[in-house]
Amino acid sequence: MSEVKIIEVKANILEANDYVADELRRRLKREKTFLLNLMGSPGSGKTTTLLKTISMLKDEMKIGVMEADIESDIDARKIADTGVCSIQLHTGGMCHLEAGMTREGVDSFHTQELDLVILENVGNLVCPAEFDTGASKNAMILSVPEGDDKPLKYPLMFQVCDVVLVNKIDVLPYFDFDMNKFKTFVYQRHPGIEIIPISAKTGEGIEEWINWLKKNIAEWQKGE
Amino acid sequence: MSEVKIIEVKANILEANDYVADELRRRLKREKTFLLNLMGSPGSGKTTTLLKTISMLKDEMKIGVMEADIESDIDARKIADTGVCSIQLHTGGMCHLEAGMTREGVDSFHTQELDLVILENVGNLVCPAEFDTGASKNAMILSVPEGDDKPLKYPLMFQVCDVVLVNKIDVLPYFDFDMNKFKTFVYQRHPGIEIIPISAKTGEGIEEWINWLKKNIAEWQKGE
Repeated sequence: MSEVKIIEVKANILEANDYVADELRRRLKREKTFLLNLMGSPGSGKTTTLLKTISMLKDEMKIGVMEADIESDIDARKIADTGVCSIQLHTGGMCHLEAGMTREGVDSFHTQELDLVILENVGNLVCPAEFDTGASKNAMILSVPEGDDKPLKYPLMFQVCDVVLVNKIDVLPYFDFDMNKFKTFVYQRHPGIEIIPISAKTGEGIEEWINWLKKNIAEWQKGE
Repeated sequence: MSEVKIIEVKANILEANDYVADELRRRLKREKTFLLNLMGSPGSGKTTTLLKTISMLKDEMKIGVMEADIESDIDARKIADTGVCSIQLHTGGMCHLEAGMTREGVDSFHTQELDLVILENVGNLVCPAEFDTGASKNAMILSVPEGDDKPLKYPLMFQVCDVVLVNKIDVLPYFDFDMNKFKTFVYQRHPGIEIIPISAKTGEGIEEWINWLKKNIAEWQKGE
């Protein structure tokens, strides 16, 4: 009984969500603001990667950050310390962000003045993949300790993302993580997707990630 | 709009779920079958810990394992290789298990003949914490690479669990994980909860975990 109920409601929610997401995306396109939706497991290194990304880009563009968390605000405080605009979105126990909540966050910025807004989604490989937030592009972080079999177990996440950052490559020697196997699994789910190995801790690979981001922001602003 | 809808539906679902969960728990008590609900992030080491647990216990008790996954059956196949009864529960994209689904899984075993059923929940620190599965006890695994701040970010998970296994302590030297800080954060959320540091890879701490499990199974079967 309850399973059927959930699915029906979910279909309605997803439909309404898609409408709000498309509207938000069109508006951000007009305002030339690129919205990046950053997803990943708890502890995969989303905030650390974000801090590195901000330090590389904040002198050449105006950035805003939305930190989605169920309860705490420790990530938003870390981001605020870098000097960029930072807000905390509390989901009130919900495991993902919807486009309506994202729009509320965006509304609290003057997006006309921002080049890049980064949304750090709730740490979760399942639910955030189901809800279009209205982002220009979706990125995910998978960290080495999580294992190379994750594309098999959480396929939707890999399908909806435009780029996968493989974080914590500095600890590759201590884990049984086969990068070639991982890439094969990802390409099975999403042929041609960009995969960038990084270490947010040591900075390895960050330049390639920043180049990917800058290229995509430039294309978005040119209207491509 | 859509937020309000979700919450209402969720309340109904949770109420119905609690009813089914309590019924399942009473039945398992009569049948003297202990149901362990094992939760944790993707890649925290649930399956590896499960394999170690099975190898330590399978000669002294009858075990059944339910592997919940969104799509794949790689974990269930690994468990089946150990010789214990193993089934795969496909959640069809859902990010957690409810009591009704758990009962379906339990029904496919002859639980009267089993001492221990372990449910490996979907890899997720958010949603599984909200749904009572009907388990005798809840356990969670948090791995060192995920970071010591997770109790602040995913408080409900730590509140609903009876024991926390801190896995991958063999890689403690390579991560900024402060065990004392972690314990303090956990105790703030759940005073007195059992915290057992382990390495499912090297076997460190596994004996303490097995002792915890055996003690709890014995108490359950005695009707305490």
